[in-house]
Amino acid sequence: MVQLSTLDAEECMARLASVPFGRVVFTHRALPAIRPVNHIVDRGQVIIRTNLGTAIGSAAGRGTVVAYEADAIDPVTRTGWSVVVTGVAQVITEPDEVARYQGLLDAWVDGERNSVIRIPAELVSGYELLVRAAA
Amino acid sequence: MVQLSTLDAEECMARLASVPFGRVVFTHRALPAIRPVNHIVDRGQVIIRTNLGTAIGSAAGRGTVVAYEADAIDPVTRTGWSVVVTGVAQVITEPDEVARYQGLLDAWVDGERNSVIRIPAELVSGYELLVRAAA
Repeated sequence: MVQLSTLDAEECMARLASVPFGRVVFTHRALPAIRPVNHIVDRGQVIIRTNLGTAIGSAAGRGTVVAYEADAIDPVTRTGWSVVVTGVAQVITEPDEVARYQGLLDAWVDGERNSVIRIPAELVSGYELLVRAAA
Repeated sequence: MVQLSTLDAEECMARLASVPFGRVVFTHRALPAIRPVNHIVDRGQVIIRTNLGTAIGSAAGRGTVVAYEADAIDPVTRTGWSVVVTGVAQVITEPDEVARYQGLLDAWVDGERNSVIRIPAELVSGYELLVRAAA
């Protein structure tokens, strides 16, 4: 059987930084919504680049609470890990910062995806699924 | 570059049925939440088995709107697909149905995960990321 063990916040952020993409979770028109995107981790923040700026961020600075999840689970062995970061997403508007992140973070898909969004890691949780030795 | 093409509902359900796990997205204590789980697709419904019964379903039949996402994205080629099903999740309480789904759907992790939850595919959307031939 597989056993679940929790990861501390530092380990969670390291796992998140080790993979190129995850899924942003938000509320859109009062419904739960989720979209895969690529990310980088920079100074304790998840940075994504997406066309969802109007749905999940606010240039006016109010922001929206979103969750960001990444995982690496092997369906054969059923082992792996999952990390979730929750925070108030904000569209980055400062031109130098936007340019820097656009350089670090490719848009994966053709077309205009101009919003760069930061998700500060306010709540961090994660776990690992490990094979437990048989008794 | 990679191009995004949408998938019709039938193709979305076929893709979802082709993989063993995905992520259930819900609202918990007013925050967006997400948890990887394994699933089967049965008669147009996503069936999951989880300990989140109190958070995402209601035995009283009211149910909660959740999204369920699965994807298969290759971070190297940046191609793949993502499917999202949205519907009112309900805890299955009819004993024969519970027993049948418990037989079809292993709990991946040790411990009590007794709720079997159905998510009817009320809203279905998905897309494929394909490499576009250079012009």
